[in-house]
Amino acid sequence: MKLADFGFSNGINEIIAVTRGKNLNTAPIGIIVEDENSVFAKARLYPSHTRENVKVNCKLWANVVVDPIIFTISAFEDLGEEYFLPNKPVLKDALAYCEFEVKLKNSVAHLKLLHGEVINCSFRAVNRGFNVLIEALVHATRYRINRENRRLREKILYYGEIIQKCGSNREKKAFDMILEYLNIKV
Amino acid sequence: MKLADFGFSNGINEIIAVTRGKNLNTAPIGIIVEDENSVFAKARLYPSHTRENVKVNCKLWANVVVDPIIFTISAFEDLGEEYFLPNKPVLKDALAYCEFEVKLKNSVAHLKLLHGEVINCSFRAVNRGFNVLIEALVHATRYRINRENRRLREKILYYGEIIQKCGSNREKKAFDMILEYLNIKV
Repeated sequence: MKLADFGFSNGINEIIAVTRGKNLNTAPIGIIVEDENSVFAKARLYPSHTRENVKVNCKLWANVVVDPIIFTISAFEDLGEEYFLPNKPVLKDALAYCEFEVKLKNSVAHLKLLHGEVINCSFRAVNRGFNVLIEALVHATRYRINRENRRLREKILYYGEIIQKCGSNREKKAFDMILEYLNIKV
Repeated sequence: MKLADFGFSNGINEIIAVTRGKNLNTAPIGIIVEDENSVFAKARLYPSHTRENVKVNCKLWANVVVDPIIFTISAFEDLGEEYFLPNKPVLKDALAYCEFEVKLKNSVAHLKLLHGEVINCSFRAVNRGFNVLIEALVHATRYRINRENRRLREKILYYGEIIQKCGSNREKKAFDMILEYLNIKV
């Protein structure tokens, strides 16, 4: 069993982290992998519900997801029960998930793969709309806490143009949701 | 049989087109899909070897690929024989391929799916390094014919920073190749 079996590769893997504390929390985070053929990884966890939860129960479920709407919702709020498999910290639309043991040292979570499962092996031709939706989200979460930064707003709107041209309806819907979350009128 | 069976979705699908004419040609192109549950698609083909070839034999093989180095090489030159399955217009590293019949009307190729095959169903967690490598390539092919445009050069280098931070070695190698093809020294 190794990280690569579940879609992880060297570099930063953007996944949906599910953690349990007082509440079930969902958030997109980057899992840093230095050796995809090992069971060890890291993540930077700044003060957040995700970090509070792993402090309490030392577990993190990484859901490998390629759905633009799931990324968008979980960047701004928690995903509702309807997105999960019954009684599992696993998203219905996940391609795979990994259960990690977490040791927190300052802002770095040291992760060890305990168990993983491939749920649905599907693939998609490269879509620039999806790709830049992820970029738009990165900038959107920064813009949310720094509304004065016009550069961020411009970048989000620039990526929106590519999404209109190249994306499927799901990318277009996800981008509309970003604009709504940020209260950007265009 | 429908486009969606082979990884195509509505929007623009960035694939490696293989065409046969005097020579075997490989080029990344965008296949425009309006109904992923059909067998029909389109592509804009500007004057190029790809277009010359489909004029001659009316066939295009779309290889669904997620390898950054294959995208990079084929954006600048033809892929060598060693990248292909023996005696087939199919790349070894393709997840799937589709054989299309092509009818060219001015700059638009009207495509009809004749046959397709899933070769290797594998998936990867979202990697921003890969995603922006595709953006860097789009800008690189423009910069190649418009060297005066400093904005394009800046964007390529901006995406390079994300690749350094988030990509795997394959994305980093692909980006180095882009810089070499463009003769950009950093």
